[in-house]
Amino acid sequence: MSRRRIMKKRAGKIGDSPGSLVHIGEVSDTIPHLTALRYHPGGAEDLSLVDDVAKLAATVTPQSVTWINLDGLHDVELIKALGGAFSLHSLVLEDILDTDHRPKLEAGEGFLLLIAKKLTFHPERDDILSEQISLVVGSGYVISFQEKPGPLFDVLRQRIFADQGRVRKMGADYLAYRLLDTIVDHYFVILEQMGDHIEQLEEELLAQPDRQLLHRIHLGKREMILLRRAVWPLREVIGGLQRDDSGIVTPAVQPFLRDLYDHTIQIIDTVETYRDIITGLLDLYLSSISNRMNEIMKVLTIMSTLFIPLTFLVGVYGMNFDNLPELHWRWGYFALWGVMLSSVAGMFVFFRRKGWV
Amino acid sequence: MSRRRIMKKRAGKIGDSPGSLVHIGEVSDTIPHLTALRYHPGGAEDLSLVDDVAKLAATVTPQSVTWINLDGLHDVELIKALGGAFSLHSLVLEDILDTDHRPKLEAGEGFLLLIAKKLTFHPERDDILSEQISLVVGSGYVISFQEKPGPLFDVLRQRIFADQGRVRKMGADYLAYRLLDTIVDHYFVILEQMGDHIEQLEEELLAQPDRQLLHRIHLGKREMILLRRAVWPLREVIGGLQRDDSGIVTPAVQPFLRDLYDHTIQIIDTVETYRDIITGLLDLYLSSISNRMNEIMKVLTIMSTLFIPLTFLVGVYGMNFDNLPELHWRWGYFALWGVMLSSVAGMFVFFRRKGWV
Amino acid sequence: MSRRRIMKKRAGKIGDSPGSLVHIGEVSDTIPHLTALRYHPGGAEDLSLVDDVAKLAATVTPQSVTWINLDGLHDVELIKALGGAFSLHSLVLEDILDTDHRPKLEAGEGFLLLIAKKLTFHPERDDILSEQISLVVGSGYVISFQEKPGPLFDVLRQRIFADQGRVRKMGADYLAYRLLDTIVDHYFVILEQMGDHIEQLEEELLAQPDRQLLHRIHLGKREMILLRRAVWPLREVIGGLQRDDSGIVTPAVQPFLRDLYDHTIQIIDTVETYRDIITGLLDLYLSSISNRMNEIMKVLTIMSTLFIPLTFLVGVYGMNFDNLPELHWRWGYFALWGVMLSSVAGMFVFFRRKGWV
Amino acid sequence: MSRRRIMKKRAGKIGDSPGSLVHIGEVSDTIPHLTALRYHPGGAEDLSLVDDVAKLAATVTPQSVTWINLDGLHDVELIKALGGAFSLHSLVLEDILDTDHRPKLEAGEGFLLLIAKKLTFHPERDDILSEQISLVVGSGYVISFQEKPGPLFDVLRQRIFADQGRVRKMGADYLAYRLLDTIVDHYFVILEQMGDHIEQLEEELLAQPDRQLLHRIHLGKREMILLRRAVWPLREVIGGLQRDDSGIVTPAVQPFLRDLYDHTIQIIDTVETYRDIITGLLDLYLSSISNRMNEIMKVLTIMSTLFIPLTFLVGVYGMNFDNLPELHWRWGYFALWGVMLSSVAGMFVFFRRKGWV
Amino acid sequence: MSRRRIMKKRAGKIGDSPGSLVHIGEVSDTIPHLTALRYHPGGAEDLSLVDDVAKLAATVTPQSVTWINLDGLHDVELIKALGGAFSLHSLVLEDILDTDHRPKLEAGEGFLLLIAKKLTFHPERDDILSEQISLVVGSGYVISFQEKPGPLFDVLRQRIFADQGRVRKMGADYLAYRLLDTIVDHYFVILEQMGDHIEQLEEELLAQPDRQLLHRIHLGKREMILLRRAVWPLREVIGGLQRDDSGIVTPAVQPFLRDLYDHTIQIIDTVETYRDIITGLLDLYLSSISNRMNEIMKVLTIMSTLFIPLTFLVGVYGMNFDNLPELHWRWGYFALWGVMLSSVAGMFVFFRRKGWV
Repeated sequence: MSRRRIMKKRAGKIGDSPGSLVHIGEVSDTIPHLTALRYHPGGAEDLSLVDDVAKLAATVTPQSVTWINLDGLHDVELIKALGGAFSLHSLVLEDILDTDHRPKLEAGEGFLLLIAKKLTFHPERDDILSEQISLVVGSGYVISFQEKPGPLFDVLRQRIFADQGRVRKMGADYLAYRLLDTIVDHYFVILEQMGDHIEQLEEELLAQPDRQLLHRIHLGKREMILLRRAVWPLREVIGGLQRDDSGIVTPAVQPFLRDLYDHTIQIIDTVETYRDIITGLLDLYLSSISNRMNEIMKVLTIMSTLFIPLTFLVGVYGMNFDNLPELHWRWGYFALWGVMLSSVAGMFVFFRRKGWV
Repeated sequence: MSRRRIMKKRAGKIGDSPGSLVHIGEVSDTIPHLTALRYHPGGAEDLSLVDDVAKLAATVTPQSVTWINLDGLHDVELIKALGGAFSLHSLVLEDILDTDHRPKLEAGEGFLLLIAKKLTFHPERDDILSEQISLVVGSGYVISFQEKPGPLFDVLRQRIFADQGRVRKMGADYLAYRLLDTIVDHYFVILEQMGDHIEQLEEELLAQPDRQLLHRIHLGKREMILLRRAVWPLREVIGGLQRDDSGIVTPAVQPFLRDLYDHTIQIIDTVETYRDIITGLLDLYLSSISNRMNEIMKVLTIMSTLFIPLTFLVGVYGMNFDNLPELHWRWGYFALWGVMLSSVAGMFVFFRRKGWV
Repeated sequence: MSRRRIMKKRAGKIGDSPGSLVHIGEVSDTIPHLTALRYHPGGAEDLSLVDDVAKLAATVTPQSVTWINLDGLHDVELIKALGGAFSLHSLVLEDILDTDHRPKLEAGEGFLLLIAKKLTFHPERDDILSEQISLVVGSGYVISFQEKPGPLFDVLRQRIFADQGRVRKMGADYLAYRLLDTIVDHYFVILEQMGDHIEQLEEELLAQPDRQLLHRIHLGKREMILLRRAVWPLREVIGGLQRDDSGIVTPAVQPFLRDLYDHTIQIIDTVETYRDIITGLLDLYLSSISNRMNEIMKVLTIMSTLFIPLTFLVGVYGMNFDNLPELHWRWGYFALWGVMLSSVAGMFVFFRRKGWV
Repeated sequence: MSRRRIMKKRAGKIGDSPGSLVHIGEVSDTIPHLTALRYHPGGAEDLSLVDDVAKLAATVTPQSVTWINLDGLHDVELIKALGGAFSLHSLVLEDILDTDHRPKLEAGEGFLLLIAKKLTFHPERDDILSEQISLVVGSGYVISFQEKPGPLFDVLRQRIFADQGRVRKMGADYLAYRLLDTIVDHYFVILEQMGDHIEQLEEELLAQPDRQLLHRIHLGKREMILLRRAVWPLREVIGGLQRDDSGIVTPAVQPFLRDLYDHTIQIIDTVETYRDIITGLLDLYLSSISNRMNEIMKVLTIMSTLFIPLTFLVGVYGMNFDNLPELHWRWGYFALWGVMLSSVAGMFVFFRRKGWV
Repeated sequence: MSRRRIMKKRAGKIGDSPGSLVHIGEVSDTIPHLTALRYHPGGAEDLSLVDDVAKLAATVTPQSVTWINLDGLHDVELIKALGGAFSLHSLVLEDILDTDHRPKLEAGEGFLLLIAKKLTFHPERDDILSEQISLVVGSGYVISFQEKPGPLFDVLRQRIFADQGRVRKMGADYLAYRLLDTIVDHYFVILEQMGDHIEQLEEELLAQPDRQLLHRIHLGKREMILLRRAVWPLREVIGGLQRDDSGIVTPAVQPFLRDLYDHTIQIIDTVETYRDIITGLLDLYLSSISNRMNEIMKVLTIMSTLFIPLTFLVGVYGMNFDNLPELHWRWGYFALWGVMLSSVAGMFVFFRRKGWV
């Protein structure tokens, strides 16, 4: 069993100078991939072929929105170049590279840094995978960093080119909101899967509590802890965006952020409810086990209590004393059966009164 | 067992544009039904036959109160029309359609959105059903949205036509208060039913703890979690109404809101008390089970401890050794009975000292 | 077993208009009884014979203190008349009649409404009874409402007529303080009784944990929950009185309120301590039961482990094989006894090493 | 077993007028003893022989510090006289006499009242004794009230006469700080003793969990509850002193109060840690008991499972059927032993696979 | 077993004057060792040979940074001299010497005192060791106090001489930040080790719960308590540094402090998560033990229930009654085997239905 670690290895980092750029996290074997596009109400163009990020940065204007997306974080040089082109502090880049970072919002000079976690439930391993998404939002541009390539933002990209919805009419802050919204929507998927999972555990528990189930309840509890770690700080991030006074978040986006904040609250609420229920399942498990033990012990006690005295009795008449008068009675054997059967009957009455049979 | 889910299915929603209107929740087979009425201190008229909501909206005046009620949320077109007529933001309509929404208060431009949960206890299924009620309150009008048709607001409608109480003399804010008050009154009914239920569980538990009871205590605990989820945010909603500064809530309604707030506090207080008691019941259950186990084990131990040595003794004299002198003693058999009876007596003294018999 | 309900029946209330006056609570069979008196530094007169409350209200002056006390709440007409005479809002009267109300302080126009709970421990039923006391304090008058007639305020009434202490020299706010102080003093009595009760439970538990005790610990825990419900909000009530800015509470009474507040804090502190201890008792109970189980199982295991092998051995020599050489050895029987006794001795050494005997 | 009560008897107090002076607490048989001294940077004189407190009060000057100490609180007249001489409100005296009072700071007119608890661990009774120390601090004087005579403040008195440290150079506020500091230092002693105690419990628990230990863990938990009750409010007292604006606490004493506050925080922190550990010990106890039960049951099961089938087998050949062919086989007896030994061997393999032996 | 104590011995301290300098903690056998260095953007010089601290203090200038490091705290005279040279209050020195002090930040006159804990995991003893690091930061100087000599700050010292990174270009506040950062980085190492430890415990627990494991889970829980005690107050320390208004912390260092604060939050978050998981492990342990007990009891019950009735049956035909007809039947013996085998078969069906085999 090799579950996801709660903390990623960062051994090499200790003692380093602050702001030194080291990628913390699994090194995937894909090549980091940079895509870029620019849009304004009148149109959208793909800039993915421009491979000089400085040139990209130079053409950013507040009138259009430039969206740069980087899949994969292990090309530190590329990220340094991005940092240079958009004048991001080295501590900001360090935060982006530390894929074990807590979700947070930080205001830099002329930009906002948002860190969030995209979670996916991995059904085969019965495990939750966490991927860090970082957004740098400035005037006229958004840079998104994904740990691994994935289709997360593809739908949104297509909508931009197809000019669906209002995204082309709005600014960089709305784009950032849409990216966050996509991440938060994924939490609902996970919660739904977890809800099904918990309900299934509950039904199995009431049917037949076994060792395997205990293990699965424990895993479920652990997954809730991980979910909570991802969602609680996200609330602060979105709350912070709403209170942002840097001018990057425009009033037009506020109603959408309020809606997103509501969703986060609802997710937190559901996570807490699931935690309560899963904790209740453990108590239920322990009680069920005790119940079963009682049942087992009852069978043992009934059998022993019935037969141990009888075995004693037949032992008495198996003795070889020269002088054991009952052995020579004509109906002794049958009388003994009578005694034994009535003792069994008496036991039955006793068990019934105890409510055991 | 198919209990109410904690979260409703929203799979289709993921990736959609914000504000896209999709009804989340069970689709009932009834046709959504719109009723409307208008009243002022001088009279009340039924407008249910006006089927053009835009016409309804156009005739709203601050001097009278127009109350539009919609039973059933699956006619998305009708709701869009209402939204257009009363210029509600698409995110507001989305919240109304998402019947899994957390109770909340939101101030829009010129109106307030209130979302609350009406709970009903379903005795046959031993389950709590939750129905979302949304209210849009503006100057001179209230729009109420119910998930399913039901007689919830019928009493109030009759009182308006009959001009009972003060409702005709007050504004739209008072009508909204009365609708909320009706919902909150239903919580008292549920709490009373739950209180009876808990007391019954308690009595049965002290009489005879069985597996079935454990299941029911677990269900009770779960229902408390659901109740809590509905009531806690409601407190914020009513508290928010009291602090409202949009001018929609008039000072004349404040004493009534304070009263309603008191009721919510009392409901929360009672829910928390029930939770404490139900958690105590689980502990009591575990202790009772342990007690019963002790009793069972005592019977087993007493029986075994009494008869196992005796069985050994009679076994001794069932042996076929050529040279086993006691067998040939004249009173050997009777002496053995003496030994056995006094050993039983000794055991009794021992058990008594242990407090087992 | 018919314990006090946590919530009183209010079924008839649902759907009623707010402020409609219905008495919630047990209907006692005594007739509501109104007493009144008026005092000032120079003297005190009994006004109990004045049966027109309007006349009473008309003669209230800020220079003297008029104290009206009503025992029993089921004469709704009388309460309506009082409300009319002292111009109390119908919601205030509703709160007074709802004897299940949470302790609270509410500022009305020209008066304060205080709701508190008087608790008494009913030793025969091992139960805490709660009675609601409501006070309306205005300029120059106090109206106190008691659920049932009782001698609660008799001592104070006598002190007023006898001009003992400072009560005649102070205003209506001091009278209200003295009434609250009397109620709070009763909590100390209950806490003392509960303390004795808990100590007794503790001693019995360490002596002999039985099923009956479990039941009593459970009851004690439940009583603590009820106590807490009564005392916590009282703290807010008295704290609110201290911060009152309506002019009804004069600076001269502030030191007394501070003292009363201290008492409430001390009561809360003690209740919380008792809760902690009683929860600890349940844990102690479970551990004690487990301990006893261990002891029972040890006896069973020792007896079985000692005698089961011996029974096997004697069974061997009870077999009827034609060719069983040991049976014909001269000292076979005695040798067997030797083997058996040394096996018992070996077992003893084993048990001793395990620390079982 | 007669442990310290959590609440002291105050039955006689109920219904009394506020500010009536009654001593609540154990009446010790020693005579209350008043000592007094006065010091200034230039010298110190013993005033213990002045037995008229009014005369003492009249000679108090802000230029010197007068320290009056009273050992024993049951001479109510003397305390009344002190109250009169220093014009203390009767409610203040009532608080001093109520030795069950919660630690608190109260600002009177021209003086501060501080109530604290001195705790001592009574090793023979395995119990914590609590003694109330009250301090009245005014301009140029400190009055300290101790429940019982004791050497608590002797070291400080000697240092004053010997002019050690800075105490003679500072004012009454510094003296009060030093008295509080002495009390707080005692908490460290108790915590050290408790720490040793807990460690010893832990070691014994891991060696051999028995019934006696359970009792002692329970006592330890209870003592922690008492400690907590004494220390938590003390933090507020010292915090309040730091924020004092009555002019009694001078800026020169502030660094010392900050230091004292740090100590209180550290004590609270340690108490909370101990509570966590002691709660963990109870869980550990329960698990250890379960472990031992498992071990006991394993022995029983192994013995029974080994010998019960064998006993059955030898029973078979003890039967007296006329036609029981095996009995007449030449090597029947020895063949049976072979069967029995190999069944034992089989059982062993089974137990080993289960990990029981 | 001699674990680290939660509180260090301070018996000698009680009753002392405040500010009296006594070293609280283990006395190590090494000689305290003072090193000093001074640097500015242009260069760095080693001042370790200057053994007069007053001379060192006299040459401190705001233009350069003087870093004095003291390894070992048991030379009280040296510390007094340092205190005199840098005019530190005696209470500050007392805090530095009390190696059991809670992490804190205190502003003195012209300097800041920071107390933190360096933790190291001692794998052989399965224990966390805590060492107190105190920093005094003033204008142009930092004094660091370590409990024991160690290589903690060596890397930083080398970087200063080698002029790596930005440390030479920044002031004393940046040096203090770097020292704190080094300490905080060590927490990540510990957390990683603890994470591995917990995962290993989890795997072993699911494989085979034994007594040894219980002990280790208990230790893990205790270590978490110690970690928490060190980390929680550190957050306040760093938060306090960020809000510092003494002018010692310059704006240039603020982004670094914000980053450090983020790290502390992440550490606290991880510690809380570990605590949750470890508490879950204890529950899992208890459930696993109950599971195993069930399994053991099932074996016992099956064996007993199978063989006890059979033993009775063969006992019946071992009796010596003169008149026991079945004994003389030709196929009696074989018929009995038939009866016994079918009873065994019946039992099997019963066990299967119960789900035991």
